Amino acid sequence: MSDITDTQGSWLSEDDIGTMRGKMPIVYINAIPVLTDDLGVVTHVGLLLRLGADGEVNREIVSGRILYGERVRDALLRHCEKDLGPLALPRIPASPQPFTVVEYFPNPDITGFYDPRQHAVSLAYIVEVTGDCEPNQDALDLVWLRPDEVLSPTVAEELSAGHERLVRTALGHVGRLT
Amino acid sequence: MSDITDTQGSWLSEDDIGTMRGKMPIVYINAIPVLTDDLGVVTHVGLLLRLGADGEVNREIVSGRILYGERVRDALLRHCEKDLGPLALPRIPASPQPFTVVEYFPNPDITGFYDPRQHAVSLAYIVEVTGDCEPNQDALDLVWLRPDEVLSPTVAEELSAGHERLVRTALGHVGRLT
Amino acid sequence: MSDITDTQGSWLSEDDIGTMRGKMPIVYINAIPVLTDDLGVVTHVGLLLRLGADGEVNREIVSGRILYGERVRDALLRHCEKDLGPLALPRIPASPQPFTVVEYFPNPDITGFYDPRQHAVSLAYIVEVTGDCEPNQDALDLVWLRPDEVLSPTVAEELSAGHERLVRTALGHVGRLT
Amino acid sequence: MSDITDTQGSWLSEDDIGTMRGKMPIVYINAIPVLTDDLGVVTHVGLLLRLGADGEVNREIVSGRILYGERVRDALLRHCEKDLGPLALPRIPASPQPFTVVEYFPNPDITGFYDPRQHAVSLAYIVEVTGDCEPNQDALDLVWLRPDEVLSPTVAEELSAGHERLVRTALGHVGRLT
Repeated sequence: MSDITDTQGSWLSEDDIGTMRGKMPIVYINAIPVLTDDLGVVTHVGLLLRLGADGEVNREIVSGRILYGERVRDALLRHCEKDLGPLALPRIPASPQPFTVVEYFPNPDITGFYDPRQHAVSLAYIVEVTGDCEPNQDALDLVWLRPDEVLSPTVAEELSAGHERLVRTALGHVGRLT
Repeated sequence: MSDITDTQGSWLSEDDIGTMRGKMPIVYINAIPVLTDDLGVVTHVGLLLRLGADGEVNREIVSGRILYGERVRDALLRHCEKDLGPLALPRIPASPQPFTVVEYFPNPDITGFYDPRQHAVSLAYIVEVTGDCEPNQDALDLVWLRPDEVLSPTVAEELSAGHERLVRTALGHVGRLT
Repeated sequence: MSDITDTQGSWLSEDDIGTMRGKMPIVYINAIPVLTDDLGVVTHVGLLLRLGADGEVNREIVSGRILYGERVRDALLRHCEKDLGPLALPRIPASPQPFTVVEYFPNPDITGFYDPRQHAVSLAYIVEVTGDCEPNQDALDLVWLRPDEVLSPTVAEELSAGHERLVRTALGHVGRLT
Repeated sequence: MSDITDTQGSWLSEDDIGTMRGKMPIVYINAIPVLTDDLGVVTHVGLLLRLGADGEVNREIVSGRILYGERVRDALLRHCEKDLGPLALPRIPASPQPFTVVEYFPNPDITGFYDPRQHAVSLAYIVEVTGDCEPNQDALDLVWLRPDEVLSPTVAEELSAGHERLVRTALGHVGRLT
């Protein structure tokens, strides 16, 4: 989960956020970008390709902090635009009910969702994308994959931090497990 | 709930459907048409105005049978197009999970949702409308109302068959009760 | 899906139900029996072992028709008691919202959920079981399996009619995919 | 929302939490305690009576912070036991999906959910209570009310901070709006 943009956008210094990360859970959003057909059937899932610190390529979903004073839906829109570009036209869900809540811990054994930096409680939403995506510099590319491709072992392996499980949960929620 | 079009579109005679209505529950969909802003906030709910058998004006939501061989999402699209017109561009939800299930009985005391003709089990969805609505001849008009207007006693009174309760449940689901 | 008991319990003759099955969708419930710990974590999923017509052993979840005049929650309780025994003490969910809706068709290509006899629309619920299960004569046995065991290829293979996919969707919903 | 116990239980000083409250959203849980019958129908909602700072009596639902390192379900159990007593036997939901997410802001105009101290993002759950409740010293009493009583103007008026809306949303979710 990258949130370089977050800390620039808020008035928290890097020191502040570092201190807090060791003291309380941080609120996040996760968004699974999808394409749908005219009947609402999910045809493709969007995964970001990002270069890891160690030079290896990772696949990721949209992810980031909710800032002080920001509504969940503002955070969803901001992170989708940050990761998918300004013309992605994401459709933010009408209901605030997430399809699941993901809990990331520095200890990978608690939930299997791992974040070495922090304890994060993340609200996960499906977001239909209706425009054109242009990932920013941070991300190498955005790839649209069919549900069966997303579930393939090769792709699954490149999804880190338990995101592979989250994507399967999302596909279950939209009735597209294969 | 009017489904004149249903029985024409399927190969069930009026006799057949009449017989079955007394013997088994009939599967329905209910759709609450809504308008949303760029952040997904529901700004308006669409209610159909329909002339009752007794000449009085009733407000209704989109409603109708699922036909043999038809998927839930096909039925949702068909009934939205039937009631809202061919240019309504309804966005059928990606997830098959309804926000609630409504049970209509000929006996109004069981659930409070009443249908003198049948026992119907109805899957209820929020459907965002992105095009132009032109209700068909059956319906007099489609009126878009703000959440606070929908919840006003005057409007509530004109919503029949427990639909007023269903609309409030829908507004709760999208975080728009006032 | 076995519903011998259903047709005995209702006043539909075998002929009637046979006729209707070819003319309209039939409303079903599916229940995934689970055991939970004190914190609500699903520790085990209950699968029924049933002898197929061809003598082979199949694993199944709780499944059956909603009868005319019966509420969804009455049907859930009735089928759980039928399949799990009278002392199972299933906890019927407070919310009528199913975690998913499964659509079974005689044509296996439409949704992948297959029922040669009928088009069924099934509301699927997680049901926590708190008592002692004694499957009836129809079922050979009820086996409680951990989530990782349920997801193993051996078990998956013995789950028919798309139930393997449904069980994975259920495990995703309760945050227990591995 | 009272969380005196929270700050004692965690290793955050009052100063620390005060500082953070002005800088980032705080993760909360809300629990609506309910009684159900054998079919899962919600028959009663539990409301806490608490003496406000100004001496007036307020009705409240269960509410509190999620601590660093604590899972959502641990927090739910801890706050239910804190507010309802050690013998309440609350049934923590199997699914991590809340029925809604409530956003409290120091500015009452943003969502209508108001908390003068902080920006809180709260995951709201229905919790069935199966044991005996003994509210702690903080709360004067716990009162079980039928859905129609909860929705009466007198009770609604005593529910503060938007909790009246949240309780109506919860009743909609369990199909018990009247």
